[in-house]
Amino acid sequence: MSKLKVLFHVNENDRWNVALGNITNLIKDVGEGNVDVVVLANGPSVAAYTDAEKIEIMKGLSEKGARFLACRNSLKKMCADNVICINEENLPSFVIVVPAGITEIIKRQHEGYAYVKP
Amino acid sequence: MSKLKVLFHVNENDRWNVALGNITNLIKDVGEGNVDVVVLANGPSVAAYTDAEKIEIMKGLSEKGARFLACRNSLKKMCADNVICINEENLPSFVIVVPAGITEIIKRQHEGYAYVKP
Amino acid sequence: MSKLKVLFHVNENDRWNVALGNITNLIKDVGEGNVDVVVLANGPSVAAYTDAEKIEIMKGLSEKGARFLACRNSLKKMCADNVICINEENLPSFVIVVPAGITEIIKRQHEGYAYVKP
Repeated sequence: MSKLKVLFHVNENDRWNVALGNITNLIKDVGEGNVDVVVLANGPSVAAYTDAEKIEIMKGLSEKGARFLACRNSLKKMCADNVICINEENLPSFVIVVPAGITEIIKRQHEGYAYVKP
Repeated sequence: MSKLKVLFHVNENDRWNVALGNITNLIKDVGEGNVDVVVLANGPSVAAYTDAEKIEIMKGLSEKGARFLACRNSLKKMCADNVICINEENLPSFVIVVPAGITEIIKRQHEGYAYVKP
Repeated sequence: MSKLKVLFHVNENDRWNVALGNITNLIKDVGEGNVDVVVLANGPSVAAYTDAEKIEIMKGLSEKGARFLACRNSLKKMCADNVICINEENLPSFVIVVPAGITEIIKRQHEGYAYVKP
């Protein structure tokens, strides 16, 4: 089997539990060496990167190869909207900030990543 | 026109009506011989496979070629969470159980299936 | 960079703000000549094509190249369900009506468009 490639798109905070469960099941099912997982958070879902309980689960998954991305446009908008201001430097070390999450979602699909909206 | 291939991802119970409406319209629009429809249910949506009214509609669509899949991880989790325990042997005969629904979603896209989240 | 191609699928009215924000960010990020944006509205979301405030934003995006599509099946169903009857002739001039939105979503992916569900 060639390596599976998938981008998980999480744009609402209440979909994180489903997303993290999906990723856990996926890695358990195919083995961590057989899948390339990218998780793109945009919109209000970026707030989960400050949630200790979720960070713990994400960290475990990142150690199995999953990459967690945050949309900079969304971080800025959440702060401008007075929801939450997250300093990029305070994000967990495994989180990668991308300028525009939406562009990342499209580019990854053009590179052969499957799209999943949990 | 070459045959269209599509995977419908249903992971919430309240999206079934939209999904079944979409599939009905699709088959009516292009003709049942011109489309390969796979429906993957994971999460709480697997409970619909015990709903007589929905089963009736699904059965009609399955006779037109649509394949309905259920995620075994989800069936187990729904039972462990005391939501509903569904014995695989009691599922409608047209339902196919797959070990991990999330893996199926990714593999199908790698095989050229379009992804639709109703 | 080759041109990015993307289909945005909007099937609920309350996802329009997210969708229009995503498209605005996308065009700002990559430049309007570098992306081919198609927006497919089906289900209740077609009602937004009568909403003056949203039409204003859509019009601006359409002038930057985004194409807005409406599903005819959905227009008819919304009228049959006594939700809203929209005469196709009264739609904004930049809106293109397609017979079955669901078919369009699949065909576009087969043509290489990425899929995004805002």
